[in-house]
Amino acid sequence: MGEESFLFWLRKRLACKDASVLVGAGDDDCAHLRADASGRLAVTTDTLLEGTHFTPEDDPLAIGWKTVAVNVSDLAASGCTPRWATVNLGLRRGVGERWAKMLLEGMIGCARTYDMRLVGGDTTSGDGPSSISLTAIGVPIGARPLLRSEAKAGDSILLTGALGGSLVAGRHLKPIPRLPEIRTILERVDVHACIDISDGLALDAHRLCTCSGLGCELEKRAIPLHPDAHAAAAQSGRSAHAHAFEDGEDFELLLTLPEEAWNALNATYPKDGTCAPLTRIGTIEEEPGVRLLHEDGHVSPLPMKGYEHAW
Amino acid sequence: MGEESFLFWLRKRLACKDASVLVGAGDDDCAHLRADASGRLAVTTDTLLEGTHFTPEDDPLAIGWKTVAVNVSDLAASGCTPRWATVNLGLRRGVGERWAKMLLEGMIGCARTYDMRLVGGDTTSGDGPSSISLTAIGVPIGARPLLRSEAKAGDSILLTGALGGSLVAGRHLKPIPRLPEIRTILERVDVHACIDISDGLALDAHRLCTCSGLGCELEKRAIPLHPDAHAAAAQSGRSAHAHAFEDGEDFELLLTLPEEAWNALNATYPKDGTCAPLTRIGTIEEEPGVRLLHEDGHVSPLPMKGYEHAW
Repeated sequence: MGEESFLFWLRKRLACKDASVLVGAGDDDCAHLRADASGRLAVTTDTLLEGTHFTPEDDPLAIGWKTVAVNVSDLAASGCTPRWATVNLGLRRGVGERWAKMLLEGMIGCARTYDMRLVGGDTTSGDGPSSISLTAIGVPIGARPLLRSEAKAGDSILLTGALGGSLVAGRHLKPIPRLPEIRTILERVDVHACIDISDGLALDAHRLCTCSGLGCELEKRAIPLHPDAHAAAAQSGRSAHAHAFEDGEDFELLLTLPEEAWNALNATYPKDGTCAPLTRIGTIEEEPGVRLLHEDGHVSPLPMKGYEHAW
Repeated sequence: MGEESFLFWLRKRLACKDASVLVGAGDDDCAHLRADASGRLAVTTDTLLEGTHFTPEDDPLAIGWKTVAVNVSDLAASGCTPRWATVNLGLRRGVGERWAKMLLEGMIGCARTYDMRLVGGDTTSGDGPSSISLTAIGVPIGARPLLRSEAKAGDSILLTGALGGSLVAGRHLKPIPRLPEIRTILERVDVHACIDISDGLALDAHRLCTCSGLGCELEKRAIPLHPDAHAAAAQSGRSAHAHAFEDGEDFELLLTLPEEAWNALNATYPKDGTCAPLTRIGTIEEEPGVRLLHEDGHVSPLPMKGYEHAW
């Protein structure tokens, strides 16, 4: 398969009628877009690399889904809704037309689910492992974007969903970005700070606190453990909590807001399954560092451990 | 060197005071930008892959420059001025901190030259060849973006600079995007269609004609040959014109406008070296296909040959 014939297929597959896309995927040197009157934009980008983030045996549909989903998750953590994306495919030579098309179908499926348009990209091939980058552009849902750095002392810390063991049953390959959740929350209350948990609760809680110049205490009893965390613990001999703190690839949102806002939100937040559960797991404090309040009442520092990409 | 320490260096290096960048490189899950009141955006992306677009022996400063420059060239071909960019670094494990920093310095140098801000990105590493993607966002210089598809029969075809032999002396590694040229042209006249020549005049002229549903006749005598085209011909035994038509990586602009507009433009286009020379090389015609008018007056079809990436 030549690049031109794959691009011909892709152009037809991505053709969309959307008032915000004046010139779309692959039709010209650039995609031409019509932004919102607010003029606010958010941009994020993430790469998935064969051998690091997926294996040749993984389902290309899932890899495609994940490439889009991790970027949608970053936009959600910024309080933004996705609009457009471009993709860079660096494919291992000989990967095959079927694999490449399945990958794209996974991307298109996730993009459509979250109402985002794929408006351009490029393809290269080489002798190394495949790498897939997506760059997503979004717009703030509310008046302002959400930052990691705006937590205030006394804020309640909330978590969507449950943590741990994402690798055990392949949950890491089909992340569900918490976009409906952040929309639902921002319709009801103002949020101070937000981050998505890609590298583990311990590391990402440290990041949020450091960016805000503050610290926090997390309540061990309150941390929602995913069933996969228990499965992972049974295999590894580590505790389910260790998996919840350190595994990463959960793509849940960690956010902070004043206690009164949490009380108001908790009263109206949907409990009918349309949104992932929302749990209060701790409190922002003046004292730097992340601490863990154990079941027996003692408090210990939570080590800043988690998934850090080495190179 | 860990990812965190490299990112720490990068964040400091990219810190910028710019009213359009509300939250910049690596400070949060997304970069937050303030777009123009026009609401118009153009997005383009290009990947350079080790082994295909550069070798491990090439100067990382030049590779960094080129990664930015090819995207600026795409924006220029769309009649847009660059504003922001994100970068995806997929680095060969063990490439070294010095190499990575030089690469970034090359990117920063080109971005500053063309007044573009690097606002985010990500890094991964693996066992395969390095790959570097840049996604650039720009805004139209005039009221409308320039497309490949809007050539009209009778249009004069213009070319910036000279073509051929870009690989002979490493010119392909330090492309000069024709941004001042397109700005100068759009200040003076309306342009119908435009494309940048990345895959060779023959292939890119065919693309412009096909997109416009038209054809063209190019005048062989008028094609400006770069000195490198003659050097390449001396080495290859092919003609300098063959190198001009087929080599690619020239990053000159090919554009079309009515003959009267060309006459008006030619009268005031700077000839003091501030802009690359502009040459009329042919005419858009109703009949599909790209034809070449030879010095002896006969006309032959120009084969659609050029650099096509195989995978």
